Amino acid sequence: MGKFKKLIIKSDIMDDDKYFKNLTDRERAIFEGGISMGSLFHQFVGTPVNVDTCASLEKAIEESILLQPAIVEVHVSLDKDMIKNASGSAGYTSLDGNMLNIELTTKINENTIVTCISYNEELDYPLMYIKE
Amino acid sequence: MGKFKKLIIKSDIMDDDKYFKNLTDRERAIFEGGISMGSLFHQFVGTPVNVDTCASLEKAIEESILLQPAIVEVHVSLDKDMIKNASGSAGYTSLDGNMLNIELTTKINENTIVTCISYNEELDYPLMYIKE
Amino acid sequence: MGKFKKLIIKSDIMDDDKYFKNLTDRERAIFEGGISMGSLFHQFVGTPVNVDTCASLEKAIEESILLQPAIVEVHVSLDKDMIKNASGSAGYTSLDGNMLNIELTTKINENTIVTCISYNEELDYPLMYIKE
Amino acid sequence: MGKFKKLIIKSDIMDDDKYFKNLTDRERAIFEGGISMGSLFHQFVGTPVNVDTCASLEKAIEESILLQPAIVEVHVSLDKDMIKNASGSAGYTSLDGNMLNIELTTKINENTIVTCISYNEELDYPLMYIKE
Repeated sequence: MGKFKKLIIKSDIMDDDKYFKNLTDRERAIFEGGISMGSLFHQFVGTPVNVDTCASLEKAIEESILLQPAIVEVHVSLDKDMIKNASGSAGYTSLDGNMLNIELTTKINENTIVTCISYNEELDYPLMYIKE
Repeated sequence: MGKFKKLIIKSDIMDDDKYFKNLTDRERAIFEGGISMGSLFHQFVGTPVNVDTCASLEKAIEESILLQPAIVEVHVSLDKDMIKNASGSAGYTSLDGNMLNIELTTKINENTIVTCISYNEELDYPLMYIKE
Repeated sequence: MGKFKKLIIKSDIMDDDKYFKNLTDRERAIFEGGISMGSLFHQFVGTPVNVDTCASLEKAIEESILLQPAIVEVHVSLDKDMIKNASGSAGYTSLDGNMLNIELTTKINENTIVTCISYNEELDYPLMYIKE
Repeated sequence: MGKFKKLIIKSDIMDDDKYFKNLTDRERAIFEGGISMGSLFHQFVGTPVNVDTCASLEKAIEESILLQPAIVEVHVSLDKDMIKNASGSAGYTSLDGNMLNIELTTKINENTIVTCISYNEELDYPLMYIKE
């Protein structure tokens, strides 16, 4: 699992601050976490993948999502067992939402939120949620 | 601009309620609004489009996003002027984020949130925000 | 299953004809069929869908793919049984490549090619092929 | 610009050979080149990118497309000048089709085809074509 951090460039945040006066810092961190999780899901699901290409895909997802507003940290770990099992006669599969294990951290001023996605057995689908 | 509404099926919401105990109803409505806005942006940007196909694409976006958790209303209006201007010798263009004018309403119990995307001239990019 | 046809606008084809002098008309029709089939697969896989929204999604896929070069006819039929079975507690699923039954017709001068995708049981994946 | 090669695993190709008896080796190499070019365009357009993340995105595109049938070589070079110019106040942009410079090689038995995409100034859109 790769790990990337970035410094928040204050001037970026300031530019659009006035558009979020109706949200608390915590609410905006939750909003940005939701946006980025929905974004990466629908951007990358469908990508051809097998166990040998997980590393480059994980890194590309991490670096691209780190660019989005308020994101300060991203961890992506694709489920290698699921990917191996799904790779049949063609030697690869299409990335499926169930294969995603991702944590991304958004920060607005002093408020930090960790947004997650992982396959939930009880619900039988990939659940997006906020970590305690 | 099409308009679709759906009834919230209470049992759906209840199923995953326990995973969101760390959020207020308002926070969860904001979270789901962010997820769905990020989702549709990255699902549909890139779709071949011209002025004659806007109606069917708007309807498909609306109906698909209405399926997502907590969404009770979706309005999609693609910018026909931008699409016309971008459709050059090929007679069509790829859907660009700047062309999106969308409002989606999420509801958790009594809390309703309207999440929007539209092109912001000052920032020169499509801004996602919460409507007052 | 919807059905859309369009007239080829000769001037469009002519514009880029010179870039395809190294291909026969049949080869170019095959090339354009492959491009459009790969395009729609990776554009639309991942879209939230259930049996009630199939019709609008099928129509949007058909109309958008008809815009692409050399396409003269498109038929899209999503597999309602698969979609129903995959729609669990959330009431919908993400469109999967296995759910696609599509035929698209490309025409270059007098040469017509029908490109297909459908789930192949023997290979256990959605096969793209040229119809006899 | 990265560069990856792979050995064709004969048994993979053989599995689905019987489905392509109506195509010559050259025609099938053209078909697979078209599919993969259409696929990567619609899979990756829309990804958040700036000049610092080009390398990881280029590598992920190359490795994922190399998995597809008949592909033996892929070169991806994103247009850094366009990406820099498009990265405004937000510090990044969405990957646009005009930014793609890609060559991919498909091989069926002794027949090799190089499929390309690059921005064409005359047509003012990204042209997909077969290299002499």
